[in-house]
Amino acid sequence: MRTIKYPVREEWEGLCARPEIKREDLEKVVGKIIEEVKNEGDEAILKYSRMFDSIELADLKVTAKEIEKAASMVDKELKESIALAKSNIEKFHSSGITDEGATETVPGVVCWRENVAIQKVGLYIPGGSAPLFSTVLMLAVPATIAGCGEIILCTPPMKDGSVNPIVLYAASISGITRIFKVGGAQAIAAMALGTATIPKVFKIFGPGNQYVTKAKEMVRLMGTEIDMPAGPSEVLVIADKDADPAFVAADLLSQAEHGADSQVVLVTDSPMFAEKVGVETEIQLGNLPRRDIASKALANSLFIVLKSLDDCMEFSNYYAPEHLIISTSDPRYLAKKVVNAGSVFLGKYSCESAGDYASGTNHTLPTNRHAMVSGGVAIESFMKKITFQELTPEGIKNIGPAVEKMAEAEGLRAHKNAVTIRLASLEKE
Amino acid sequence: MRTIKYPVREEWEGLCARPEIKREDLEKVVGKIIEEVKNEGDEAILKYSRMFDSIELADLKVTAKEIEKAASMVDKELKESIALAKSNIEKFHSSGITDEGATETVPGVVCWRENVAIQKVGLYIPGGSAPLFSTVLMLAVPATIAGCGEIILCTPPMKDGSVNPIVLYAASISGITRIFKVGGAQAIAAMALGTATIPKVFKIFGPGNQYVTKAKEMVRLMGTEIDMPAGPSEVLVIADKDADPAFVAADLLSQAEHGADSQVVLVTDSPMFAEKVGVETEIQLGNLPRRDIASKALANSLFIVLKSLDDCMEFSNYYAPEHLIISTSDPRYLAKKVVNAGSVFLGKYSCESAGDYASGTNHTLPTNRHAMVSGGVAIESFMKKITFQELTPEGIKNIGPAVEKMAEAEGLRAHKNAVTIRLASLEKE
Repeated sequence: MRTIKYPVREEWEGLCARPEIKREDLEKVVGKIIEEVKNEGDEAILKYSRMFDSIELADLKVTAKEIEKAASMVDKELKESIALAKSNIEKFHSSGITDEGATETVPGVVCWRENVAIQKVGLYIPGGSAPLFSTVLMLAVPATIAGCGEIILCTPPMKDGSVNPIVLYAASISGITRIFKVGGAQAIAAMALGTATIPKVFKIFGPGNQYVTKAKEMVRLMGTEIDMPAGPSEVLVIADKDADPAFVAADLLSQAEHGADSQVVLVTDSPMFAEKVGVETEIQLGNLPRRDIASKALANSLFIVLKSLDDCMEFSNYYAPEHLIISTSDPRYLAKKVVNAGSVFLGKYSCESAGDYASGTNHTLPTNRHAMVSGGVAIESFMKKITFQELTPEGIKNIGPAVEKMAEAEGLRAHKNAVTIRLASLEKE
Repeated sequence: MRTIKYPVREEWEGLCARPEIKREDLEKVVGKIIEEVKNEGDEAILKYSRMFDSIELADLKVTAKEIEKAASMVDKELKESIALAKSNIEKFHSSGITDEGATETVPGVVCWRENVAIQKVGLYIPGGSAPLFSTVLMLAVPATIAGCGEIILCTPPMKDGSVNPIVLYAASISGITRIFKVGGAQAIAAMALGTATIPKVFKIFGPGNQYVTKAKEMVRLMGTEIDMPAGPSEVLVIADKDADPAFVAADLLSQAEHGADSQVVLVTDSPMFAEKVGVETEIQLGNLPRRDIASKALANSLFIVLKSLDDCMEFSNYYAPEHLIISTSDPRYLAKKVVNAGSVFLGKYSCESAGDYASGTNHTLPTNRHAMVSGGVAIESFMKKITFQELTPEGIKNIGPAVEKMAEAEGLRAHKNAVTIRLASLEKE
């Protein structure tokens, strides 16, 4: 880690820089995959499974029997843990649906909005070393609560052609049974365009490698919505001298083990505390199975010392972290000043892993300063608000003349006429 | 217009096709503009003003004096109309901020979200024949209510170097005084990257031509958020034999006058009614100043006859129109079945122009089937929801073991450790 003491304001922008992501060079290869899936459908998918995953699949769709078998392979204690996480995610996400009611802006003009689920959504779950069954819950649970009519899931199969049983189990208890064995850019293309086997969806959710991310960017330009742009995961911890250095070190490491490009930042008003955390981090690192990954991330990590906790908070808002942990003696004081962050963890017992798995909050969050403009995936990510309005004769009389005047001033006579013809008919009555 | 009677379901997809938008060829020219604004800042802006608008500007920023002068140039009646529209937009958009409260998912684990304004936003208002001051209200009013700290507006100057006075007036009464004389892709680039004169913003709103739209697409890939992808404007009217053919014709024309590529669709269960609307449309068209544009749009318009109003509604959901007018004897019956639409107008007196200007609803709406996944611009477009959570010792004891189990199963030991170390410290106490 690099410790920077009392950087002046001009240095902040540099300290907030994330690793530059160059995806232009992927455009050609991902574009070709999308084109082939468009033209050849399932054939292209099967070809890429052969090419990238060395698998000859007979069928892309996971069968009911496979799902049933998967459930028997997950141990009881893990099932109970998943059940608790799922229940909490359900509780928290259900609370996110709000109904603002109707507004009568002037007598006879009533306007309102209604929450309506997106009809067809696709979830992508990466394969690889760690099977992200927690992400299945984070996406499938709100999709189900929102009432999306069709929810499909794509995930790459393992070498033997099967899908990780915990992923299948988490999907099925969340009500998803249309699961397809396909990964990478070809999975994103299939969900965006549809094939004979894999249905076309309107919005695609989920993490993935650079090919998946590039494919999501490209299908968005073609009209399929995506959850959010993806970047390396991030944590920023604000801590004072009263915080526990071992707890903070554990939190920094839990971010560092995600990947070599993980962004790990400690901001404190105590140089002594920063030193203690450095020592604790080294100690805990030694015992981690993923210490090679974590130490690469730590090499790029920043320990920043500032004059006051208010300055620390200001720096955090400038950085706009995906995860913000506030481990100070009065975390609620700083919480009120949070302007840019994805998910905020208050106090010494609120570790990021709690929110990653089981507290109920979503772990699909904005990275790379996207927290400036957007929150994480939530119930409303699976819905849209449709506006309605109803005017009575009184209503059109009340606002009609203003509409006529404004339409005329914008040079849009037909807009004006639509009102004039109605007002004239009412005068005749 | 083209009348299609009782199309079978297989034909629907073709009937819903929008004109294909090819923007790939714009990438080079827009990319060059963005690059120059990045490297040369204001110099590049002034160069493009010279090149595209034939104007030599001394200063990009609109002065307080110019704003003051503009107010004196707007007539009293128009000012009153704008005041009514603004008041209604304020009322409706204020109702959109909802607070869902905190949720204690299990004892000791409290999670909640808070609405926080996006700090810096940029509004783009096109120039050209019709000065879209109504769009100024639609964007500036919710931005102000949301509490965005910095709101700037870019709009191209007229030939004499001044900005349309009604645009300036609408901006200033909405609280926006940082207005810059710049249009096109260079305006989008300036707001995304910042120049010496024009501040960098985090999210850009507003309509524009194909260069503006392409620039918005491109800066989004570079990390600046945009409101939504833009396409030609659309209306779909569902009407039965009880509707007024003259009203419906007026509504179709008010859409048609927007541009030659406007999408105009009538869906009805009565072939006779469709015929009547056709006749009325021809009559009203003759009197329009923009009849050349409107007749081009009408040439591509569709009159679709289906067996029942339920079928009409199903077709509309399949089409996912930006604007949906339901002019039937029982509009509330069909309203309940709306699944995909941007803004819905119920009953014979609810014309689209009411919502375009003054009812209070927003007129920045999803086109090109984007209504499948998204609503229009609203108060929440200028805010984000930040998630918070706070765990007590009881809370971490309640969910900690589940987190440990799940993290272990995902192969993320450091995630597990962050809990283990806390549970261990509590046992010691």
